[in-house]
Order: sequence, then structure tokens, then C-alpha cells
Amino acid sequence: MEQKDITEWTDMLDMSREAEKVQQLLQSRDYPAIRRALLPLPPASVADILLELPEPQSAVVFRLLPKGDAAMAFSYLPKAEQKALIHSFTDTEVLDLVEQMHVDDSVDFLEELPANVVNRILRLSAPETRNLLNRYMEMPEGSAGSIMTAEFITLDGGLSASRAIAQMRGGKRRAAAGHMVYITGEGRKLEGILSLYDLLMAKEDTVLRDLLDKAPVTVHTDTPEEEVLDLFRHHALSVMAVVDKENRIVGVITADDILELADREASEDAELMAAMHPMEDGYLETSVWQHAKNRLPWLLFLLLSGMLNGVILGGFEATFMLFPILITFIPMLTDTGGNAGSQSSTLVIRGLAMGDLSLRDAWHVLRKELAVSVLVGVGVALATFLRAYTMEGGGLGVALTVSLGLLFIVIMSKLLGGILPILAKKVGMDPALMAAPLVTTVVDALGLIVYFSVAKVFLNL
Amino acid sequence: MEQKDITEWTDMLDMSREAEKVQQLLQSRDYPAIRRALLPLPPASVADILLELPEPQSAVVFRLLPKGDAAMAFSYLPKAEQKALIHSFTDTEVLDLVEQMHVDDSVDFLEELPANVVNRILRLSAPETRNLLNRYMEMPEGSAGSIMTAEFITLDGGLSASRAIAQMRGGKRRAAAGHMVYITGEGRKLEGILSLYDLLMAKEDTVLRDLLDKAPVTVHTDTPEEEVLDLFRHHALSVMAVVDKENRIVGVITADDILELADREASEDAELMAAMHPMEDGYLETSVWQHAKNRLPWLLFLLLSGMLNGVILGGFEATFMLFPILITFIPMLTDTGGNAGSQSSTLVIRGLAMGDLSLRDAWHVLRKELAVSVLVGVGVALATFLRAYTMEGGGLGVALTVSLGLLFIVIMSKLLGGILPILAKKVGMDPALMAAPLVTTVVDALGLIVYFSVAKVFLNL
Repeated sequence: MEQKDITEWTDMLDMSREAEKVQQLLQSRDYPAIRRALLPLPPASVADILLELPEPQSAVVFRLLPKGDAAMAFSYLPKAEQKALIHSFTDTEVLDLVEQMHVDDSVDFLEELPANVVNRILRLSAPETRNLLNRYMEMPEGSAGSIMTAEFITLDGGLSASRAIAQMRGGKRRAAAGHMVYITGEGRKLEGILSLYDLLMAKEDTVLRDLLDKAPVTVHTDTPEEEVLDLFRHHALSVMAVVDKENRIVGVITADDILELADREASEDAELMAAMHPMEDGYLETSVWQHAKNRLPWLLFLLLSGMLNGVILGGFEATFMLFPILITFIPMLTDTGGNAGSQSSTLVIRGLAMGDLSLRDAWHVLRKELAVSVLVGVGVALATFLRAYTMEGGGLGVALTVSLGLLFIVIMSKLLGGILPILAKKVGMDPALMAAPLVTTVVDALGLIVYFSVAKVFLNL
Repeated sequence: MEQKDITEWTDMLDMSREAEKVQQLLQSRDYPAIRRALLPLPPASVADILLELPEPQSAVVFRLLPKGDAAMAFSYLPKAEQKALIHSFTDTEVLDLVEQMHVDDSVDFLEELPANVVNRILRLSAPETRNLLNRYMEMPEGSAGSIMTAEFITLDGGLSASRAIAQMRGGKRRAAAGHMVYITGEGRKLEGILSLYDLLMAKEDTVLRDLLDKAPVTVHTDTPEEEVLDLFRHHALSVMAVVDKENRIVGVITADDILELADREASEDAELMAAMHPMEDGYLETSVWQHAKNRLPWLLFLLLSGMLNGVILGGFEATFMLFPILITFIPMLTDTGGNAGSQSSTLVIRGLAMGDLSLRDAWHVLRKELAVSVLVGVGVALATFLRAYTMEGGGLGVALTVSLGLLFIVIMSKLLGGILPILAKKVGMDPALMAAPLVTTVVDALGLIVYFSVAKVFLNL
């Protein structure tokens, strides 16, 4: 292979040009050329090309690939496209796919199919495969068990390094990314892990038990996936073993699934922070109705609490009717309060999610937010003072009212933005719920009361 | 090792209990017992214990560890604690650390030290180490080169599998997590990659060139790290090679660094979206002044544009003086506009960051946001209508004004929230800048104009 090809394929996010080539080859029925073009590509790029092809053509190209390559590419396809592609497949063809994919990908795929199709496929499969798939499909969503896969190799701790390698070479089991081997002892209990590299580098007669890492980080099948993610972060892992109650290894979690999980958690948090029910699918795949259902309830909830502000404002009608200029500052005051609070709540929510902050930092956060809010508050209050003092209809009284009101609003927003996420976590709620929208609504109410109370003092009302 | 220990260590985020044990052992000067207690722990947990110990004690415990274990634990310490710990170290001790850590961790550590200390350490180190460290320290921040490490193994493509294994066992080079070997050809150019597992499973006389994966995903040293992250996501990689202009491998990027990068990118986006300059360090490590510097400029910018709203509002004084009840709805209208826009901008910003959305989806997004905003807008407008119709001082005219104004504001917020991030990306700006605060400010201005214009129609002003 020439060097040119390697660098060419580094830009693999846009495969449309390659898909065109494949289409031309399809028209001239040059199937061997298609196979030659696709074989050296990484599976995700083959999936990209399949995505670009119209439906009957993608199935033709898919069938040109060797079973293993086809299954790997298939596991990179979005769920909707997986279902579309197998439309014309026989049950045996689907079974081949299921058996060739990693178990976690097979299970994800099967979970999208109608129950009768799944049953048909399971009935066709070998008893061992069937048991494995059934066991994996039963794992509760959001648990370590639901993201693990079954491609791992176990070796008895009493084996010598050379015997272990010989046994691996004789075995049929595949290994997923990460390339650890799992060393077991009595009752198939996990004794430790050993990297393939250390196994390869070991003296031939060394016993595995003397080589292994005795305290690997493991989780149970029912460990929440957020905890799994935290452990991967904390220990900078590339793979992790999942064990059952008897400490027997039942699966492994690989780095690619962890990156996906981290991305999903970040998106969920961002969506909660923007006052939405998190999406299950991508933006484009989610229907208009579902989008509306995710967004309306929160908007209504915030609307109702926002109406409280209207009531408060109504109570100050006498004040603002005397000084209508005060009204023109309301949007600026509430927006700045919202922005200041959102800055603080975002930092604290991210800090809690990443493990940089914990419940015991509450006082530290409050003290810091107080200091920061005074600095920042004085900054924006000065700017506002100058504006209100110099504008038509303004003057010292108005300028003092607006700038002091703003200073107070900024301090309050930042204190609430800093502490509400920590309090939420303390009572077991998701801190991300305490983001800008909720803080804004609370701060608006308090801020308006303070603003008009200050006005009464400075404007002698 | 008993089974109990393994599960005990799975809860590794709180090491304070173990740190107490170590402190007791320190008091009774039972150093061998400390060593025995720490040796089986994962390095991140040893680091946790060091963090819990007061300074002179942590250095004592650190010196009890074997060099390699000490260096691994050291690489898990936060930067500030790394600097504190080496305070009492000799240059040779620091050099030992630098040589034992993975190159990327060594470089991160050296970059925190004063230049004269770094020069002293480099002068002490072997020429080969010095060259490597110098080369790595020169990598521009934010590039693939700045996150790669040097622990990889290259093998000539012409070797047989058995010769390759023999050569590896004779070599001194360490391998980082991921456990691929990199196959080179003429001029040490990268020909492909091979997993250790496949190497181990291969027939002894098979030539590596016939085993390897010919189109590995690679990047250049100057590839931006965001692109590296996208490739890891797209191809579900656990490790990736970094090559120079001549396609010679110069480093590898491992999954743990990618998870860290994904977390950092998500935090940066969250901070930009909340109208802040992203932090360089953690929340607690960042000083009050730096926090204020990160937050004030954006608040001032939004404040100034918010003042425009005051001017607009001032222009409608005649209207709201006749119907003061209209004023009481202003916070609710602007907050709901902000919330509705923030929902849309958040979804689009995340979609763009994750690669689920691209520039060519602009129309799709606009159509979807229009449909969703009509549904959601009608929902909140109905609730508002009922409230305004039935409240004291309300009535049909006021109810129609408020609810139609709100409907329009929601539609506009969602369209702007959906399209602004895409436009920002098109002109090369960070889409995250187009989040709630900016959308809110723009929507407030337009919304107020519409609200009072509608009022003029329905209230015959």
C-alpha cells in the first residue's frame, strides 16, 4: 500500500466522494473493484459510504463485503439505517450479523427490532449465543451491565505465561479493544488483570498470578453508568471489568462506549440546564411532537412562576407610574440577573458533574461567589450609573436606584446560582435542573422587590 | 489476595479512611506496612491518599514507594500538589520522576515548573530523553502533538510474527494503554497498525505486512485536538497514531486523554454558552480576580445591548402609561423568550459539537424550529391568555395582546436560537457564543416592539 492512501483516509468524515465512486462501479457491475475499494477502509468509513447510497444499492454493496467486515461496518450505522438495511435480509443473514458483531452492539441492534423478529433470530441461534444475548438484553438501562460487552479472555491464575499464550491461541474467544486478559482463580472468581503487553513480555515460566495487577478497578452489573464514567475519569482507564455478586467477570466496558457515555451525559446536562426534558435520539431524528413534548412542560412551569413576578410588579404600580423611566430598566435588570446567575450555576453544575466540586465545598463556593459577585456587580453597576445619570429623565436618584438595585441583583443571582445546584445534589436532585431558567425566575422576583424598595428610598416615594 | 479486597477497592473516590490508616502507620513508623498497604492500590488511589496527607508526611510516603509506582501516582496528582510535593526533592529525584512518567505527563508537569528548574533537569537527563522532552514541549497548545505520548512500539513490516515478538521482548520501549504495535516500512514510514492480540494469535511465520490494518486513522502533529476528538468518536477508537509530514509515527493518543479532552470541550462550551470566558483551571483553583475577569466583560457587553431595550421601552411610554397592567407582563415575556430560545440554541450547539448537525442542515433546523415553536408557543399563549383574561384589570384586549405577543416572541426566539449557532459556525465563530444570553438580548428588543405594537391594535391606542 502506498503512503498516499493513509493520509488520504485521515479525512474520513466526508465519504460522499467515495460513495460516488462506488455508485459508478455499481453501474458498471464491477463488484470485485468495489470490494477492493472498501476492504482497506476503517469500518466507520464503510458505514459512511453505505449511508450515502440509496437503499437497494446499499444492500448490494453490503453483501459484497466479507461477513466480519460487513458486521463491523453495520455496528457503526445509526439505528434507523440498520433497520432499513436488513429489510430485505433473510433471518439467517440477520443471525450472521448478530453473531459477528460485538455482543453490546448486537444487543443494541436487537432491542430496536420487533419482538417477534428477535424471537425468531434467537430461536435460530446457537444455545450459547442465545443465552448470552438474553442475559445482556435483561440488563437494566443506565447500568454498567447495559454498556458492557462480552469480548474478553479469561485465563487461570495458575498458568505459566507460555501456557497461557498457547491456550489463548487455541481458543476461539475474541478480545475487544483494550487488550487486557482477566485472571481467574477458584470458582472462576476474578483475581486480577494483566495487559497483553505484560503477558507477552513475561518470562515463559512465570505464573500469571505473580504478574497480574491485583486491584483492578471493577464495577458490578448494576453499578450506575455515571459511576462507571467517574471511575474511568479518575483512574484514566482504557477498559474496565464488570463482575457479578460472586466477583466473577461477566463483561468488559471499553473506552469507546465511555466516550459516548460522557458525550451523552454532557448533552443531557446541557438540555436540563436549558429547561428541557433530555432527548432520546438526535435532533433531526426526534419528531416535532416529541420536541414540543420535551420543551413545553418546562416553559409552562417557568411561565407560571414568572407570573408571580407580574403580581409583584403590580404591587409597585404607584411607584412606577410616578417614575416611568424606572420601567425602561426592567429588562436590563432581569437579563443581567439571569446572565450573572447563569454564569455561576453553570460553573458549579459542571464542577459537580466532573467531580471537581462536592457537597463539602458549599461554603467555599458561597464565599467565592460573594467575592466575585461584589467585583462584577460593582463593574456593571458603575456602567449603569453613568448611563442612568446622563440620560434624559435620569439624574442622581434614578441612577442610584438602578445601579444599587443591579448590584444587589448580581450578588443575589451569583449566590443563588452557586448554591442551588449544590443543594439540589444534597437532596438527591439533578444539579443541572438548578440552572439559568430557575435561578432567573427566582432572582427576578426578589430583584424587582429590591429595585422598587430602593426606589422608594432614593426617590422619596 | 482475598476476594474481599477487590470489591472493597471499587469504591475508590473516597480514600480518606485509607489515608487515616496510613497516618497511624506513619506515627508508629511502620514503613513496611505502609508500603504493603499502598502497593496493590491503583495509582489514582495512591494519589488520593497523598492528597489527604499533610505536606511533610506525603513526601515521606511518596519516597516509600518503588520509583515506577511513585511516578505513576504522581502523574495523577493535580498540578498544584505536584509542585508542592517536589518542594523538598533533589534535582535527581525530580529527574527520576520525569523519566519514569509517560512522556505526555512529564511534559505537562515540566510546563508548570520555572524555566530554570526545567533547564537544570533537562541538563541532567540523558540526551535521548532531553531531545524527546524538548520536541514534545514545543508542540503548539490545542494540537494533536500536545496530547500525544511517546510510549509506542514500532516493528518492521517485513518481520515474521515470531521474530516480531522476540524483538519486542528484547526491546526496552514501553507501550501505553491501547496496545497496538505500529508497523513501519521503508524510511520508517507508517504502513499500518496491528493489535497485540492479532500479533499473538498469528501463525509464527506470517509476515507482519500481511497481518496489519492498512488504513489506520492517523492525524498530524498540528491537527487541532477537536478534530482528533471527532475522529475518536466517529471511529470508536481506543488509540490513534500521530504522524509527521513524512508519515513517520511520532506519538500516540490514548483513550484517557480523549475522555479528558471531551470533558474539557464540554465545559468550555458550557462556559461560553453561559457568557463567560472559559476557565483554565478548576473552579476552586481559579482566583476571585480571575473569576471576575472571566465574567465581567460579557456581562458588560450584554448590559450595553440590554440598554437598547430600555430605549425601545421608553418609546412606548405613552402606551404603557395608559395600560400599566401591560408592564406587569414584561418579565414573564422576556423570561419565556429567553427560555424558549435557550432550548433551541442549546440543542443546535450540542448537535453541531457532536457532529449530529452540520451547516447543510440549516433549513431542516429552521423548518423544525418553526413547527415546534408554533406548537409550544400556542401552549404557553393559551395559558397566558387565561391568566390575563381572568385577572383584575385584565380583559379580552389585554389577554389578546399578551398571548399574541408571547406567541410571536416564542416563535422568534426558537428560530433565532436554532439558526444563530449555525450561522456562527458558517462564519468561523464558535457556535456556543450564540447561546441563551445573546439570543435573549436580541429577542427582548424585537419582542418588546411586537408586544407594544400588538397592544396598539387590540387596545385601540
